Amino acid sequence: MEILGASFLGSKAVTAGKAFHAWNPALGKSIDPAFHEASAEDADEALRLAAGAAPELRALSAESRAAFLDQVGESLLELGDALLARAGEETGLPPQRLAGERARTVGQWKLFASLVREGSWVDARIDRGDPARKPAPKPDIRRMLAPIGPVAVFGASNFPLAFSVAGGDTASALAAGNPVVAKAHPGHPGTSELAARAIVEAARRSGMPEGTFSLLQGGGNEIGLSLVKHPLTRAAGFTGSLRGGRALFDAACARPSPIPLHAEMGSINPVFVLPGALRERAEAFAEGLAQSVTLGVGQFCTNPGLVVGLEGEGLDLLRKKLAERIAASPPGVMLHPGIREGYEAGTSRLERTAGVRLEARSEATSEREKNHGAAAFFTTDARTFLARSELSEEVFGPSTLVVRCGSTEELEEIARKLEGSLTATLHGTPEDLAAHRRLVSILEDRVGRLVWNGYPTGVEVGHAVQHGGPYPATTDPRFTSVGTAAILRFARPVCWQDWPEAALPEELRNANPRGILRLVDGERTRAAL
Amino acid sequence: MEILGASFLGSKAVTAGKAFHAWNPALGKSIDPAFHEASAEDADEALRLAAGAAPELRALSAESRAAFLDQVGESLLELGDALLARAGEETGLPPQRLAGERARTVGQWKLFASLVREGSWVDARIDRGDPARKPAPKPDIRRMLAPIGPVAVFGASNFPLAFSVAGGDTASALAAGNPVVAKAHPGHPGTSELAARAIVEAARRSGMPEGTFSLLQGGGNEIGLSLVKHPLTRAAGFTGSLRGGRALFDAACARPSPIPLHAEMGSINPVFVLPGALRERAEAFAEGLAQSVTLGVGQFCTNPGLVVGLEGEGLDLLRKKLAERIAASPPGVMLHPGIREGYEAGTSRLERTAGVRLEARSEATSEREKNHGAAAFFTTDARTFLARSELSEEVFGPSTLVVRCGSTEELEEIARKLEGSLTATLHGTPEDLAAHRRLVSILEDRVGRLVWNGYPTGVEVGHAVQHGGPYPATTDPRFTSVGTAAILRFARPVCWQDWPEAALPEELRNANPRGILRLVDGERTRAAL
Repeated sequence: MEILGASFLGSKAVTAGKAFHAWNPALGKSIDPAFHEASAEDADEALRLAAGAAPELRALSAESRAAFLDQVGESLLELGDALLARAGEETGLPPQRLAGERARTVGQWKLFASLVREGSWVDARIDRGDPARKPAPKPDIRRMLAPIGPVAVFGASNFPLAFSVAGGDTASALAAGNPVVAKAHPGHPGTSELAARAIVEAARRSGMPEGTFSLLQGGGNEIGLSLVKHPLTRAAGFTGSLRGGRALFDAACARPSPIPLHAEMGSINPVFVLPGALRERAEAFAEGLAQSVTLGVGQFCTNPGLVVGLEGEGLDLLRKKLAERIAASPPGVMLHPGIREGYEAGTSRLERTAGVRLEARSEATSEREKNHGAAAFFTTDARTFLARSELSEEVFGPSTLVVRCGSTEELEEIARKLEGSLTATLHGTPEDLAAHRRLVSILEDRVGRLVWNGYPTGVEVGHAVQHGGPYPATTDPRFTSVGTAAILRFARPVCWQDWPEAALPEELRNANPRGILRLVDGERTRAAL
Repeated sequence: MEILGASFLGSKAVTAGKAFHAWNPALGKSIDPAFHEASAEDADEALRLAAGAAPELRALSAESRAAFLDQVGESLLELGDALLARAGEETGLPPQRLAGERARTVGQWKLFASLVREGSWVDARIDRGDPARKPAPKPDIRRMLAPIGPVAVFGASNFPLAFSVAGGDTASALAAGNPVVAKAHPGHPGTSELAARAIVEAARRSGMPEGTFSLLQGGGNEIGLSLVKHPLTRAAGFTGSLRGGRALFDAACARPSPIPLHAEMGSINPVFVLPGALRERAEAFAEGLAQSVTLGVGQFCTNPGLVVGLEGEGLDLLRKKLAERIAASPPGVMLHPGIREGYEAGTSRLERTAGVRLEARSEATSEREKNHGAAAFFTTDARTFLARSELSEEVFGPSTLVVRCGSTEELEEIARKLEGSLTATLHGTPEDLAAHRRLVSILEDRVGRLVWNGYPTGVEVGHAVQHGGPYPATTDPRFTSVGTAAILRFARPVCWQDWPEAALPEELRNANPRGILRLVDGERTRAAL
């Protein structure tokens, strides 16, 4: 399958603009063909098309929208091995991982299709009127969630399928009924092009209006800022670095007419290993932790970058076992040279910090020309950790820092000092949990997901998952970027007062033709009125 | 009932700081006793108390929280006529209006109590695990909405009860389980103190932790900015001017750790009167419009500031009737001299604009020493309106601008040009509605509430109402500040993965002891697992 090197303004492939190439990190060389940086004019054109498509998209039946989402899943599968091959070249990620990620990506589209088809997600509410009410008649008011308008999506580098052009942000924004303008991550422009072609093809087959989806290629910050600042953009989703996310967030807030920008950014994902777990299964814990730290060469936003436990025999055993496992882990190809350099800078900073000790590093030769990142494991004590705020910053890659505490109070003090994270994990026995209620309460206030006796890597796509947390994990902890609730980022309530029934959306008509669950006069029911 | 002139740091009354007085707008004189501006140190103390109370509040049973909310309603009623008398002195609002507003305010507390007692608002979701899943076991994940943390509330001047210290923002934030630090509007400090005393007393009777609620008095911007910038503040609600709301929003976004700030600000609330309505009932429409424009001396955020219709006989009749009614309407006391001055500046600006004509003004003598605002009614044509963007700015007070259009296309062009509003209203026949689908579609994209053959003033407190809209109506159109859904501003999802059942919140336990509606493996059910 030939790569065109294109952006897509609606269904039209565009190959003008400054050229750039994708990079193969494992081979250390660039990949043909050339891509072309989209311009501010391209962003404007994409958003005009999107705004033009918006009313038509909003008026579509739920079934038409669901069929389109299903079709995107099919079109992605139709790309076949070409998609996985190109993604592998551009990211260094192994075939098995990419096959799994594709399954997850296709599953996301199917899940959103089923959510839209079932339909109750619109949170329909009806308060019936009462013309006889005194002193004034009570109006009939009916409310449901409606699309927010054109959404800009910024793909992540570390999941070229599941969190990129055809990832959860695009799927949830389209599921809510919005047009999408996606900005491709420059780390995998070819993968992005293929994903975009699948979406464009699915839109064509499903009869979606022109402008439902566009893709802009480019490496600089300007094109992203153009998208966020454009008056027709109504919301945006971003997954990536704290610096990049914050810059876009600031631009979104500073607009004459501010818009929500959902950025999912860095996270240290603390793991607290409690006394019972250290006593009963320090080695097994170390084994699982090493796997979680090195999974995908540590390039997960849920990578466990911090481990906290009480010093003693158990922690010594954990440390010994973890050192063995980290030393034995093979170095892996990182996504691109910038990520590797950032990782090396982060581990060097830890290594140079007084009071921090490098306990182990992957012993296999790490080959820089293959863009290898070597796993590493550091220790420090609570006093040092509490004194140096830079130690609680995320190091993106396969490293972790174990903090030895002298008391439960120190565990709590560390928890209290942590910034927002996507996850916090506890390992322990039921007795541990009962004895550490205050620690749990502190952590509940700082994260979106709490994990018991597991590891934070591996994020389920479902209804109940919360992938989000207080800043800097995300810019708004009231939303998730994974799972069906992600759709709520891109919808807003509209209510109709005393509106003629025939002109209401299906979801709000008396007969409830879609059979959705509604809140009628305070009662949840699928019944007709 | 003696007014202390106090702020409240938790239950402690504080009367230090620079003195200021309330103002009686109808008598043009200040009211005793002196109040005292809270300091940044007071804000810090209030937020420390709030943060201290937060974990205990979060751990309370829903029933305890509901009982507290009910008790606030009772305590407000126990203030008796003293509350209404003081509110009347400070705002110039008539007794009957204030009695109605108190009923609405007490009703809000009761409604949130019932919402919390029923419990399904937490949107509990359970995805059950599957240890046998390949390649990796599927974890058990359970999610619900949890309190966001300490909330700052900024009361509005125009509803001293329903949108102020004991208004919907405070009620919804406490209902979600958060502590609240309220900033009193300097226009009604005594009313604010009384409302705060009711909340503090209710907290005491219900055994709420110290710091559940605090009140800060003061007139300047500094104390408000201290509250929004304080690291312990997690969210804020504001009702007031565009300038004030935007300044707080900018401060909230610029924090090292940004927080959501929900500001409900200006709104022009356009009314489109379609050909059938002009033909059949132009006079009746004018009658209702005049009432809506002058209700509460026009000091409603849903005041209809713009009327758009096709020129012709019907519109001439409307204009004639509206002129009569506006001329005959008595001037009313405005909330404070600043509001009156702003209103006079706004109507003077309209009067001076070329192409805008003053059609009528209240003929009764308006007495400036009584802070009277005189109703006014202007007309212009579509061309002038479209050429001058200042004509679509809100004039806060009892005035409206009628725009004559020459064609349906001009109606649509005006709709397209409008910024976000809380409401849009259409008057017409069923045939009109069918013939103006595109106009309706444009308006649906710009407002939160659409009204058919009614008037936008009068906002129902219920489940289905949407009181919010695209900027500048609010800073985030995905939320409402009125009705039970207002609670969603102040809650965030937390999920627990493979968590021991006994340590889960009641809402997520297998037995579903609270009997709430939950989403279990994608099915909505009240059944136990």
